Amino acid sequence: MLRQIVRRSSRALQKPAARPSSYSQNMLQPAMSRWYSIHPEAASAAKPLDIDPTRLSITKTKSPKTPKDPSQLVFGREFTDHMLTIEWNQTEGWLAPTISPYQNLSLDPATCVFHYAFECFEGMKAYKDNQGNVRLFRPDKNMERFNKSAARIALPTFSPYAAIDLIAQFAKLEERFIPNERGYSLYLRPTLIGTQKTLGVSAPGSALLFVIASPVGPYYPTGFKAVSLEATDYAVRAWPGGVGDKKLGANYAPCIVPQMEAAKRGFQQNLWLFGPEEYVTEVGTMNLFVAIKNKETGQKELITAPLDGTILEGVTRDSILGLAREKLAPEGWLISERKITMKELHEASLEGRLLEVFGAGTAAIVSPVRKISWKGTMVDCGLHEHEESGEIALKMKNWMDAIQYGDEEHEWSHIC
Amino acid sequence: MLRQIVRRSSRALQKPAARPSSYSQNMLQPAMSRWYSIHPEAASAAKPLDIDPTRLSITKTKSPKTPKDPSQLVFGREFTDHMLTIEWNQTEGWLAPTISPYQNLSLDPATCVFHYAFECFEGMKAYKDNQGNVRLFRPDKNMERFNKSAARIALPTFSPYAAIDLIAQFAKLEERFIPNERGYSLYLRPTLIGTQKTLGVSAPGSALLFVIASPVGPYYPTGFKAVSLEATDYAVRAWPGGVGDKKLGANYAPCIVPQMEAAKRGFQQNLWLFGPEEYVTEVGTMNLFVAIKNKETGQKELITAPLDGTILEGVTRDSILGLAREKLAPEGWLISERKITMKELHEASLEGRLLEVFGAGTAAIVSPVRKISWKGTMVDCGLHEHEESGEIALKMKNWMDAIQYGDEEHEWSHIC
Repeated sequence: MLRQIVRRSSRALQKPAARPSSYSQNMLQPAMSRWYSIHPEAASAAKPLDIDPTRLSITKTKSPKTPKDPSQLVFGREFTDHMLTIEWNQTEGWLAPTISPYQNLSLDPATCVFHYAFECFEGMKAYKDNQGNVRLFRPDKNMERFNKSAARIALPTFSPYAAIDLIAQFAKLEERFIPNERGYSLYLRPTLIGTQKTLGVSAPGSALLFVIASPVGPYYPTGFKAVSLEATDYAVRAWPGGVGDKKLGANYAPCIVPQMEAAKRGFQQNLWLFGPEEYVTEVGTMNLFVAIKNKETGQKELITAPLDGTILEGVTRDSILGLAREKLAPEGWLISERKITMKELHEASLEGRLLEVFGAGTAAIVSPVRKISWKGTMVDCGLHEHEESGEIALKMKNWMDAIQYGDEEHEWSHIC
Repeated sequence: MLRQIVRRSSRALQKPAARPSSYSQNMLQPAMSRWYSIHPEAASAAKPLDIDPTRLSITKTKSPKTPKDPSQLVFGREFTDHMLTIEWNQTEGWLAPTISPYQNLSLDPATCVFHYAFECFEGMKAYKDNQGNVRLFRPDKNMERFNKSAARIALPTFSPYAAIDLIAQFAKLEERFIPNERGYSLYLRPTLIGTQKTLGVSAPGSALLFVIASPVGPYYPTGFKAVSLEATDYAVRAWPGGVGDKKLGANYAPCIVPQMEAAKRGFQQNLWLFGPEEYVTEVGTMNLFVAIKNKETGQKELITAPLDGTILEGVTRDSILGLAREKLAPEGWLISERKITMKELHEASLEGRLLEVFGAGTAAIVSPVRKISWKGTMVDCGLHEHEESGEIALKMKNWMDAIQYGDEEHEWSHIC
């Protein structure tokens, strides 16, 4: 199974960049001389090691937890017995991976992750199929993005195949925490943080990759529940040339206040608009899909924002596009990665051409939208009064489920 | 001394906002119902406590360090014996402040600071005057900004006066680490992190404010050394509606790669441009000042970018503007907070009207610029070949020194 993934994604992954030595520079220190005068040995050092799964050591907990009643699970609140950790430093590269009991991290208060947000992460899930196999969904896509995020903030990159191998072993080790019921899964959170303990603003000389796992229940335990959004025009999530397309911690904390503002007025999420054109970009922390009927031709079109640097490169987004091209295009649908304005969406709604709108992300897979509050107008997103989901959102959820839970054998599903 | 600060800055400080309860929401959970159904008691709870300096407890180290030879100090690498910490949670508010031995923080790997960059900080310095007093420089400005940063990412705010009182006590306790020589100081790093240990993206229900202190030497031990900059147009630091005006960790990690790129080509720092107009915004992690002579009138003008939401509200920036208005304006200078394009700067350089350019920040105070690489052109910033600083940068440094080291009694200097 691993070989298959290697083949699929080898084109897209970045090589670790050559890294200058980086000890504690002042903010405006002549950087070149400082880097090479403090650590002249760095230039001649042997190539630092990549992550090596064969060096994995496992220390099992002596006090295993009792998995919680699945119906009581809350997202990201309960964790399994163990965690996977891999340390890195600029001299040696990646050290031996370790699976050890879930435990606190002990870090110097000067550690750069606390000050300069040297941190990126992934969100992915392990599912149990009806043969009892543990399956990951498109882990190659997650590790590809993880490397891109790391490189953008001068954290070390690594072999995605080695990381998938280790994450798969870890998920399998924790399989007793994955409830054997449809809708349940083990949420995996690979995280990479800078650990250098100096206050100079520079590329971290050391880092820690860790993976923790949290059993999660269905996002909608009693079936879909359509949400209402508030369009946000007073704050901007991302910008061309910025880092909004990377899964950095930096993109998340600034989203909370607009989210709380929307909640105050009774909306479950905010919808990020961009620019004077008011392009529809993302909803809260998910990608957004819009289905409309063409004004002239009547052709149905499924639209999501293009990857122009301001949109998170969602794995669920990519999967929905793939499934749409495979299954909807032959039925006559146009599948578009293009910009769409709030005005266009509003017009389609008024003319009865807005078929449905839904968010897409790892947590909910799809999340249907009932209405959007925009400049004092309530834009109806096409659901009938007693409907909680449109047809496409429902189909997508079922197609994704079938692959994720292994009902259907598919190259996106990776048996651990 | 504290009363004076209270009077000076009471107009500008934010009140802590009402905070909803925030346990572990899913990313698209109906937020209102979740917040108030999990913690109904939050609404009726007594007003959470503010920071209270009278509750301070001090535990001194049993193994005091020997302060390092001042000439060997590297910025942000050595720390004093103790740290100041104040915990917060949404039920009780701010707990009793503690000064205790400098030590690691022990945090659950699910803690939100590692994942979503719930972190903001300040940079400030304590100086020793020639009577042996320990002095802070404009701590009210730092605490005002600290509160603004915290509020923007849904972290708790606090009384700035209480925080200044505690920081002053802490700096005084560590005074043996402040070398008794001009150019030396104790760099103070107040930091606020979210500590909630769940993966739901929501306002942290708990936080930790800590202050650590690092003795630092003069930025330019042998006198000014002018730097060269590379104008960055392929990456954008900040944008309108974003968070580039707040001192968030989120603004720093994404700056490193452009900095490394500039360094690779032999430039000490990068210069952030903005928009198709190529407005000059900031240099690396400092504000930027430009002195030009007017084309028509010959009037001298000191220019820095206006606070339009994309510029860090630097305390050194504000101080330089204040000193310029007090001391340069009467000599005929125009002091401007306005946008200036790279083209305008280049034209002034070609015409011999670009008098000087310098960065401004807490670490270096001022940092003269020799040249800027821009689209294959090298823009000369007005220094003669053997000069390392222009006249204004030098004057500013001396004026600032005199206030910071207490040679001149000034309302900006706060005796601890």
